[in-house]
Amino acid sequence: MSKLTDLPKRILIGQALRSDKLGETLLPKRIALPVFASDPLSSVAYAPGEVLLVLSVAGVSAYKYSPWIAVAVVVLMFTVVASYRQNVHAYPSGGGDYEVATTNLGPKAGLTVASALLVDYVLTVAVSIASGIENLGSAVPFIVEHKTACAIAVIVLLTLMNLRGVKESGKLFAIPTYVFVGGVFLMIAWGAYRGLVAGDTMKAPTADYTINAEHQGLAGFALVFLLLRAFSSGCAALTGVEAISNGVPAFRKPKSKNAATTLALMGGLAVTMFCGIIALAMATKVRMAENPATELLRNGTPVGDGYTQNPVISQVAEAVFGSGSFLFVILAAATALVLFLAANTAYNGFPLLGSILAQDRYLPRQLHTRGDRLAFSNGIVLLAGAAAVLTYIYGADSTKLIQLYIVGVFVSFTLSQTGMVRHWNRHLRTETDPAKRRHMIRSRAINTFGAFLTGLVLVVVLLTKFTHGAWVALLGMVIFYATMTAIRRHYDRVAEEIALTDEGDEQAVRPSRVHSIVLVSKVHKPTLRALGYAKLMRSDTLEALSISVDPAETKMLRDEWHERGMDVPLKILDSPYREITRPVIDYVKSLRKESPRDVVSVYIPEYVVGHWYEHLLHNQSALRLKGRLLFTPGVMVTSVPWQLDSSEAARRRARKRAEWNAPGSVRRGPVAQPRKEKAATKK
Amino acid sequence: MSKLTDLPKRILIGQALRSDKLGETLLPKRIALPVFASDPLSSVAYAPGEVLLVLSVAGVSAYKYSPWIAVAVVVLMFTVVASYRQNVHAYPSGGGDYEVATTNLGPKAGLTVASALLVDYVLTVAVSIASGIENLGSAVPFIVEHKTACAIAVIVLLTLMNLRGVKESGKLFAIPTYVFVGGVFLMIAWGAYRGLVAGDTMKAPTADYTINAEHQGLAGFALVFLLLRAFSSGCAALTGVEAISNGVPAFRKPKSKNAATTLALMGGLAVTMFCGIIALAMATKVRMAENPATELLRNGTPVGDGYTQNPVISQVAEAVFGSGSFLFVILAAATALVLFLAANTAYNGFPLLGSILAQDRYLPRQLHTRGDRLAFSNGIVLLAGAAAVLTYIYGADSTKLIQLYIVGVFVSFTLSQTGMVRHWNRHLRTETDPAKRRHMIRSRAINTFGAFLTGLVLVVVLLTKFTHGAWVALLGMVIFYATMTAIRRHYDRVAEEIALTDEGDEQAVRPSRVHSIVLVSKVHKPTLRALGYAKLMRSDTLEALSISVDPAETKMLRDEWHERGMDVPLKILDSPYREITRPVIDYVKSLRKESPRDVVSVYIPEYVVGHWYEHLLHNQSALRLKGRLLFTPGVMVTSVPWQLDSSEAARRRARKRAEWNAPGSVRRGPVAQPRKEKAATKK
Repeated sequence: MSKLTDLPKRILIGQALRSDKLGETLLPKRIALPVFASDPLSSVAYAPGEVLLVLSVAGVSAYKYSPWIAVAVVVLMFTVVASYRQNVHAYPSGGGDYEVATTNLGPKAGLTVASALLVDYVLTVAVSIASGIENLGSAVPFIVEHKTACAIAVIVLLTLMNLRGVKESGKLFAIPTYVFVGGVFLMIAWGAYRGLVAGDTMKAPTADYTINAEHQGLAGFALVFLLLRAFSSGCAALTGVEAISNGVPAFRKPKSKNAATTLALMGGLAVTMFCGIIALAMATKVRMAENPATELLRNGTPVGDGYTQNPVISQVAEAVFGSGSFLFVILAAATALVLFLAANTAYNGFPLLGSILAQDRYLPRQLHTRGDRLAFSNGIVLLAGAAAVLTYIYGADSTKLIQLYIVGVFVSFTLSQTGMVRHWNRHLRTETDPAKRRHMIRSRAINTFGAFLTGLVLVVVLLTKFTHGAWVALLGMVIFYATMTAIRRHYDRVAEEIALTDEGDEQAVRPSRVHSIVLVSKVHKPTLRALGYAKLMRSDTLEALSISVDPAETKMLRDEWHERGMDVPLKILDSPYREITRPVIDYVKSLRKESPRDVVSVYIPEYVVGHWYEHLLHNQSALRLKGRLLFTPGVMVTSVPWQLDSSEAARRRARKRAEWNAPGSVRRGPVAQPRKEKAATKK
Repeated sequence: MSKLTDLPKRILIGQALRSDKLGETLLPKRIALPVFASDPLSSVAYAPGEVLLVLSVAGVSAYKYSPWIAVAVVVLMFTVVASYRQNVHAYPSGGGDYEVATTNLGPKAGLTVASALLVDYVLTVAVSIASGIENLGSAVPFIVEHKTACAIAVIVLLTLMNLRGVKESGKLFAIPTYVFVGGVFLMIAWGAYRGLVAGDTMKAPTADYTINAEHQGLAGFALVFLLLRAFSSGCAALTGVEAISNGVPAFRKPKSKNAATTLALMGGLAVTMFCGIIALAMATKVRMAENPATELLRNGTPVGDGYTQNPVISQVAEAVFGSGSFLFVILAAATALVLFLAANTAYNGFPLLGSILAQDRYLPRQLHTRGDRLAFSNGIVLLAGAAAVLTYIYGADSTKLIQLYIVGVFVSFTLSQTGMVRHWNRHLRTETDPAKRRHMIRSRAINTFGAFLTGLVLVVVLLTKFTHGAWVALLGMVIFYATMTAIRRHYDRVAEEIALTDEGDEQAVRPSRVHSIVLVSKVHKPTLRALGYAKLMRSDTLEALSISVDPAETKMLRDEWHERGMDVPLKILDSPYREITRPVIDYVKSLRKESPRDVVSVYIPEYVVGHWYEHLLHNQSALRLKGRLLFTPGVMVTSVPWQLDSSEAARRRARKRAEWNAPGSVRRGPVAQPRKEKAATKK
């Protein structure tokens, strides 16, 4: 399979970069912040808009609640940041929410978190890229006109980059992230100056529009429900906060402390930007509607299908900096870039989580090996495929995609924080040092509040968003959960089947003698090599076996065998039906029947070729025979390779492939350390 | 790959029938005729119509030439039948045109014939089914309204039947063929009686239509060209005549004589039906146009796109038996059935020719094994796919498909007959018996005339049909030819590479010692079995090798190894990058470097599983390792299988698959005999 796709893959992805020193450098805080925080910081590009969008259902008058919703999001953000600061201290191994939940709440909770995270990674890609495209589109109309195509093009581009295994540097993240953060702060400051000091009236492009609200003058329970829905949408600002807790090993020492500081910094920046953008949106009278085509009115008439509703951040930037101004374009570009970087973090997180899940046997074992390009590639392609499908289905509309997004995040927040409460309870049972106890009790209190609040938000999100799309995310989680459970169950069953029961049973099956058979079709170099190797093994009996499908060829073989004075007896089986597999199987079975304690060793000369199409021309009968032989107990099959000249090409390809690096290595700290630390923790 | 598609295949194709006695029965002439002649006999269902169609280009007045064209076709048919009667006597092995051309004209001519025949098989399926659908459609309008879909459905049905490996009986062919032949003769006789004796006026449904000819009153060279084109179309009646020459071994003794008689019988029946239908078409005033929608006028106005032009045979039957009469419906059904049987012959011929070409190394070797279901299946699927594509492209329009058809037939006729001339020349050089010489000279004269006439027809067909579609058939032939040449060249190069040069070089590479390595990950039953087998082989050194990707797991392994007092030394290689392949390869290479004359034998415990998805969960690392190890010279890789419980399912499946029969066995005579006879001929 992989062979078939090799050529186009080579052309697209090119040769991987050589680097033996995978992630040797540790990150200082100023680099760690952009590396880990591109996801949560970039979410301020879409979260404020979502709040206004939902409020617009009750008309522009409902916008007045937006500061209160901002306050609620800020409280939640501080709670989550404070909670995760406890995580990074307690789990410096970087196992993240999956480890915390599994250790403290058991494997089912862990698997639930893992399913939620996997779904989340897919949505991070879809939402971030859709939003990035919308931000770019506010500066370049062509892009927004071909939204879906552009979004899928960015997905493909990121996929190729990651398949290629580019070595990221911290700078790659630092520059756009700091430009973005700087740009937003400049915008807030300049806006505040113009509005408060200079007294300018700044008007967003939609300031003069009116909203034809679905439910004008909502009140009572319905209003509360709407406010909760607006709050749920605002919670999109919290996605990706947990990233730092996965990356502790990549920090400079003291790792946990630096990680905690970075978390706090990130939280501070995020809430400031979130509130600033909401405030500016209110000041510049940004108008957003859920269905702009019909609900947004320009001079009293609906704007219609041709209208593109630009993101809040770009509308505000237009009002503050002026339409088409240099700073406006720079900010739009930086916003898009940071959003694409946020998407890229999922490309690293998804296969890494897959590798951890594989270690716990929830996914195929081979995904565990870190340096394995194929395993990483499969994860990357799966992620990109799922994200592209969602992007296509939802027309790269970030508003629609966000409805799916927040469920997974809060499932893992809640379970992780609940796990932390259990963690402190367990430690408190044995801890006697009063200072440490006090510290733990404080941490437990923070995590308890965190668990409570995130749990509450999860319920709110489920209630308000279920029919809007959250069910899709839940369905995705259930599919991941069921698949991983099935895989684990399979591995467990096999492990039980092959486990040693007692010393006796192994002795009982110990075979006594080996009967070796070398399969021969012609007398040529590969045959002689196979015979030579078989002779070296000094088995009890050795014979050459040939299947006669053509009397003339068989006669030639027999003649040459005698002519050359071969010292191995040649047995020829007639196959009137010109089959190869069945006579060999039957012969081997008859040998086993004669002396059931013997082992039959079958040597098959195998050609090693360099191109996929050559596989179609060689070894087919041999491979099928091998497949069938393996079903017969008491048989082993030895391939004696003969390297054809063309195999040199494949060897060169394999060597190149071995030099490939896993993507995102910069975020994982020095190799092997995390697992060692974890192993130490387990003891 | 094949595993992945196994489940749906099982469901669709079901369990094959058991039959150990493949084609034990020999065919009497009365059964051989329908078995081999369904293709040429059924072509009278479309050939007469094609003649009228082409003539209509010059208007209805040109229909008067149709008897002359019928005479030309009859002469050609007798010539070809007489020629092939020489073939069956000279080549009773059933090798057919490919064998005759290869033996007498060399491999290039043989390969040209083979390419032509492969293209022909594809077109036999496409044309026969399209025509069958049109005939059925004359009785059941629904079918003709969904022509393409119905034709493709029939292709799929035939494909499934053949993949299933149904055992055909002679009766399956005999009943519809005799009903068809009987029906046509009855129609001719009844038509002659009504027209000549009773003096009825029989009118075809199109008798009152007029034709708006493209080139009214054509004359001179243009007319000659048109007549030649009409003749080319009429030659469609000759397709499949060569089938009997492939099937001589299936006849009762005296094989050649019986085959020759059957050929003559078939020729006689075909020309009688062909001429009878043409005569009735003239008598009943059938009107056919190349583009009926615009050129066929009803009461002076074109019939338009909604009009369906029924085949001549059905129009005549309607005129003779009456529209919707019992005999009319029976004849339409029998015609369609015979045409589908004709298509089915290609399903047998294509993989059989593939197997002969594989023996000569023009196609992958594994296609040669006769009982191999997979090889046959690939051929069947390739044939059906190509036919379905053509059917789809040409909208299941038999008239358009026939333009492609006749080239291949006449390429193989011409080359085969030319080969026969050479054959007689060669034999005449050594033959001294005057009676035999006389006989040979007569045969040579017949074949010479056959070669000349078929060659002439080939030129006519190429000239008149090239732009009408013959170029597609030629392109197909070129593609087959180029592919097969490339495959043969590859095999030749490999054969040269692996051929023994002199006794010396094999001695020089003879290795001295074996160093055995058993790959170990955990101490469980598969590991112990692999160790037990490896110990039996008494190699010079034996060690267990484990790659440490997780320190905790490695410690467990090391502890258990010592606890159990394993008597094989355990070597552990550190793999900080969590890779498995590279450390093993590097270790094996270092062993080879230390003592280059040693052979390294690597034992890999391999799980044998029962379902395709289990392959994704097991053996992946082992298989990739094996693939890489085979590139290293001086290494052999032994799989020590451990049959998981689930493997029982796969074993049952494999057993069922082994009971499968190649399709069309009834047509090939007793097993193994043809090849033996051929081998005898070669000596």
